[in-house]
Amino acid sequence: MKKSVLIVAGGKGLRMGGDLPKQFIPMNGKPVLMHTLETFHRWDEAARLILVLPEEHQSYWKMLCKEIGCGVPHEVVNGGETRFHSVRNGLEFLSERFGVSFGRNENVFVGVHDGVRPFVSKEVITACFEKAQQCGNAIPVMPMIESLRELDGEGSHPVDRSRYITVQTPQVFSSCLLLKAYKQPYSPLFTDDASVVEAIGEVVHTVEGNRENIKITTPFDLLVANAIFADRCNL
Amino acid sequence: MKKSVLIVAGGKGLRMGGDLPKQFIPMNGKPVLMHTLETFHRWDEAARLILVLPEEHQSYWKMLCKEIGCGVPHEVVNGGETRFHSVRNGLEFLSERFGVSFGRNENVFVGVHDGVRPFVSKEVITACFEKAQQCGNAIPVMPMIESLRELDGEGSHPVDRSRYITVQTPQVFSSCLLLKAYKQPYSPLFTDDASVVEAIGEVVHTVEGNRENIKITTPFDLLVANAIFADRCNL
Repeated sequence: MKKSVLIVAGGKGLRMGGDLPKQFIPMNGKPVLMHTLETFHRWDEAARLILVLPEEHQSYWKMLCKEIGCGVPHEVVNGGETRFHSVRNGLEFLSERFGVSFGRNENVFVGVHDGVRPFVSKEVITACFEKAQQCGNAIPVMPMIESLRELDGEGSHPVDRSRYITVQTPQVFSSCLLLKAYKQPYSPLFTDDASVVEAIGEVVHTVEGNRENIKITTPFDLLVANAIFADRCNL
Repeated sequence: MKKSVLIVAGGKGLRMGGDLPKQFIPMNGKPVLMHTLETFHRWDEAARLILVLPEEHQSYWKMLCKEIGCGVPHEVVNGGETRFHSVRNGLEFLSERFGVSFGRNENVFVGVHDGVRPFVSKEVITACFEKAQQCGNAIPVMPMIESLRELDGEGSHPVDRSRYITVQTPQVFSSCLLLKAYKQPYSPLFTDDASVVEAIGEVVHTVEGNRENIKITTPFDLLVANAIFADRCNL
């Protein structure tokens, strides 16, 4: 099975409160994004890694890679206006680079991963690819831990949290399915790749994620991320 | 305004994977529960703090308080079979100790707080009590950050996360309201104090919580908790 992973890092970093886009925030001397690339490279050295990055950040990224010495082979593709457009650009690159067979060969699988999730476990990545091979797609999810309320016209009401799951990445799909889904016009209802694929009538399959696979988007997340990283180094 | 806080620590600690109930797990040399008591004592030294603890843990708790030197005045009340029963025990204690006026005086307010949430901010506690004074009750909530799916018969479907909020504590109520609500028979639908109060037809009011106010129930939470604690000490 050929495996490709689109690592999407379109964030402008506004939520982090600084000028530095969140994917470049350093963690133990390396940008978060480089940790994410390393995670996938450690998982499978043969996987094709495609980094989707806004054009205006690419020279900075190349400078960082040179200075720090990024040892992970990867291609860089221009990001788009939204996450949807970024993923579509990544898919177009894969199609062009690897030919028409890419979209027709059922043994080609593509993962789409948030650049600011460096802590996904090898086991979860493997589980997503294996389930996608069986079912056409797979996304990692976690049970909802906190009590949940739904807003309504007058205020809010409690809902049964055991009926809800939270969604992580990588979201993995057979390439023909993903290419077909991303031919649709953009809709603001597309919140992730699973929702794009569901819009063409596919059923989305889930596997269990790992708790540490957080999305680093706020200073609080960075505090947690540094703690996870330090904990792993002590192991 | 007279203020009382029931700190509920009924957990048997099964989720932490060890024998030590989660509220006793040490953080910087002190059990989590002692940090929680200190948080409320720092907020208002005049607030009455009632610790609701299973009877079988009380001698261990008293030994810890003596050894470590807990400087926070508090009363200990027996926990019940569920959180609902624990809170009801705490309320009965307050009624007996402070007389019938407790339930009739509108200026008495009671907060109910999870013993394993030591990081609630002073500002959030104050906001909950102030809003409760205006509206009869208040609970702290946070926007839902992660993508959310709802389970259905066939699998799951995405839902709009902006319609959902997660619930924290302290949940604060006028004493007469809370006493009335806790006269209801127990229902497994009661997931928190707000849901008990809603069951007698009250509208629940919200204030914004603080992100660090996590509930420490798993080893991962403890890792995050230690990071928050270390970060605060550096400030």
